[in-house]
Order: sequence, then structure tokens, then C-alpha cells
Amino acid sequence: MKNKKAIVLLSGGLDSTTVLALAKSSGFQCYTMSFDYGQRHRSELNQAQKIASSFGVVGHKVFNIDLASFGGSALTDGSIGVPEVLSEGIPVTYVPARNTVFLSLALAWAEVLGSADIFIGVNAVDYSGYPDCRPEYIDAFERMANLATKSAIDGCVMTIHTPLIALTKAEILQKGMALEVDYSQTVSCYQADSDGRACGKCDSCRLRKQGFADANLEDVTRYL
Amino acid sequence: MKNKKAIVLLSGGLDSTTVLALAKSSGFQCYTMSFDYGQRHRSELNQAQKIASSFGVVGHKVFNIDLASFGGSALTDGSIGVPEVLSEGIPVTYVPARNTVFLSLALAWAEVLGSADIFIGVNAVDYSGYPDCRPEYIDAFERMANLATKSAIDGCVMTIHTPLIALTKAEILQKGMALEVDYSQTVSCYQADSDGRACGKCDSCRLRKQGFADANLEDVTRYL
Repeated sequence: MKNKKAIVLLSGGLDSTTVLALAKSSGFQCYTMSFDYGQRHRSELNQAQKIASSFGVVGHKVFNIDLASFGGSALTDGSIGVPEVLSEGIPVTYVPARNTVFLSLALAWAEVLGSADIFIGVNAVDYSGYPDCRPEYIDAFERMANLATKSAIDGCVMTIHTPLIALTKAEILQKGMALEVDYSQTVSCYQADSDGRACGKCDSCRLRKQGFADANLEDVTRYL
Repeated sequence: MKNKKAIVLLSGGLDSTTVLALAKSSGFQCYTMSFDYGQRHRSELNQAQKIASSFGVVGHKVFNIDLASFGGSALTDGSIGVPEVLSEGIPVTYVPARNTVFLSLALAWAEVLGSADIFIGVNAVDYSGYPDCRPEYIDAFERMANLATKSAIDGCVMTIHTPLIALTKAEILQKGMALEVDYSQTVSCYQADSDGRACGKCDSCRLRKQGFADANLEDVTRYL
């Protein structure tokens, strides 16, 4: 395990920061990757950069990918509001094929770096119902990835690690606290201000707030 | 079939142009997608634009995606030369995870457009051995795509169409000629000049030239 390279997708939120802590504590040499995809909450990119530095990652890449040019999501289209009440089904904050695009780019970087390990903080318990967070999706992506590359032909077996997928938000927080993650640095809010302060009302804020409560931890989120 | 929307990946080369002709002749409303990914043969983008116009597509999108920032390929790294002699195994013109990234972005656009059909001109007969051109890879991508999106949850079944996958280059040319494709417009060369003129020496030129010969067709390629 020691000195193996891993790509960690790092949005700067609670989940991905916990994943980075877990990957590092497992002995991986971590390369973090964030995406400037036209999201309204771009302040998460600044936080991701700070978090990557504080973890002493080997490399941090911010990749520009204009998913806003497709539209179709409240996170990338300014004309669609971020909902502040729960609705039935998959919410409008869903970004079409986002995790598929992100994982594909991570796969490209992994192949060039000679890494066989990609970490992503998807969760299918306390989540918004996004299809690309479910275990069956991740398994299918991993299977596809193992047919997609020259590395795969050469015998390298790619693993998509999802250490949070079956945990509650409270359990995620407890794992992170055990690794001394500073959650005040993380930004989960879909409409955080430019300083990374959270609205406290969107789906992502609601799930996060409930997680702190369920874990009997002080909510260190910086709210507006 | 009539009036269904399809995304067609269009590089401006012989194969993808034939695919566009086939998709259009099948009655699809075609939306073409090209990628400015840092390739050395960027003149193919101009040709793709012209080809899209000549086919009267409903929409044409040029998506910027900086795969050159990863490096690792003769097509995106100026310091790695394009080989002009055949070598064993997968050549250095392989671009890490390229088709996975392209298909992921096509999937995102398809979902927003309400399309369930993506066309790609991969070929596993007269090809360079790229892993992401094989049928087993395409099948795995399609399976993943059908777990990845809100559309899939809503019951939309995505098909990745690969009408050329089992054809020889000569057979591809014959199909295209029957649909009156003007192959002089297409650019396949890995190191075409800014006017789209071909070197005649790289792997891609070699396969194309042999295709014209095998099909007993005049080679209309514009060479340097």
C-alpha cells in the first residue's frame, strides 16, 4: 500500500475532504483533483486548494470543464434556483453525467501518473438521490475503466474507492474527526458566498447540519 | 426513428463523417460534437465545422477540454513525435481515456437534449489497437451510462451506436460513397497542416490510403 499513487476527487466539501483524510491515512501518495465546471458555488474551489495544501498532497489540479454550456441544472444555470425545501425524486441540483465526466478525467490523469486508485466521496445513504452516487453505478464505471485504457491492457487493475458509500453523514463525520479533519475549512453549500459561508437552507446544508446533530458534534460550519 | 435526436461525435475524419452520413440517412436529427482537446492536428476542427454545415446538422458544439494538460500522448505532447513506421502494441498516438472522456461529455449533452442515441465512429478492424475502440469497451460504457443519469432512472435507455465497428476501411468508404460523402473534405492525418493537408506517412494516413486502394477508389485525400 505504501507509496502507491491515488487520485482523490476533492470538491472541498465535507465528504471529499474526509475521503482525502482516509486515503492519506491508508498510506497513499495523494493527487487531488477539483473541477471548475461552471458551478455557482465556485468558492468551494478556493477551499479545495487550501485543504489540499493543508494535507500536503503531492499534486493538486484544477481542471476546467464547462458543464454550464450544457445547462440543465440549478448548479450550473443561474436561471434555475437552488431549492430550499425538499421535493420528490431527484432534485434540480443534479448535474447531468457529472460524476461520469469527473471520473473519466480522473481516469485519464491516473493513467498518465501510473496510478491504479481513484477515490471519490459518493454516498448513497444521506444523499440527494443522484443516480451517479449509487454502488451499481460505481461498479459499472470501474468495469468500463478496466477495458478503456492502455494500462488495463497492460494488466493494471483500476479500483474506484468509495469509502463513504454506505455510511451515514454522522458516521462520515466521526471517521473524519478521528483523523482530525478540520470541518470548518470545508464548504458543502450549493450557494455558498465568495468567502465559502453556507446558506443553511439547501439540500446539501440540510444533510450536513443533520449529520453534525446526529453525531452529537458541534456544527463548525460558517453560516451566512 | 424519424425525428429522434442523436449526438454524433465528429472529429472531421473519414470514419466519423461516414457515421454522420449513416445517422442522418437513418432519419435522426443530428447534433454533432467536436473536441478541442489540445491535439496537434487542430485543423480537423475546421473541417468538422464545414462537414457539420454541409450535412445541415441541427446543432454543432466544439467543446474545449485540455487533455494536453495530462500529456502522455504524441497527439497532445509536442515533445513526443508522431511515428511514421509501424510498431508493436498500442502506438504512442493513444490518448489516455480519450473516448471515455468524449463519450461522457456526449452523455451529458444527450441527457440535456433528451436524446437516447450517441453515435461514435470507432472501428476494431483497420485500426491502431486503441483499447477504447473495442466492442467490449463500448458495451461496458453503454451499461455504465444506463446507470449514470436521471434519464436512465426515468426509463430512457441510452444506446451507443458504433455502425463501423466491424467494418474494414474499404467497407466504410463504400458505405459512405453510397451516401455521397465527399471524402476530400475529411482529415484523418495526425499531423495535418493548418489547411488540413495530410502527411501520408502516419498510422492514420496509412490505414486511410490502404482503404481507398482496397475499395478500388481514387484517393481524394489532399496530401502535403
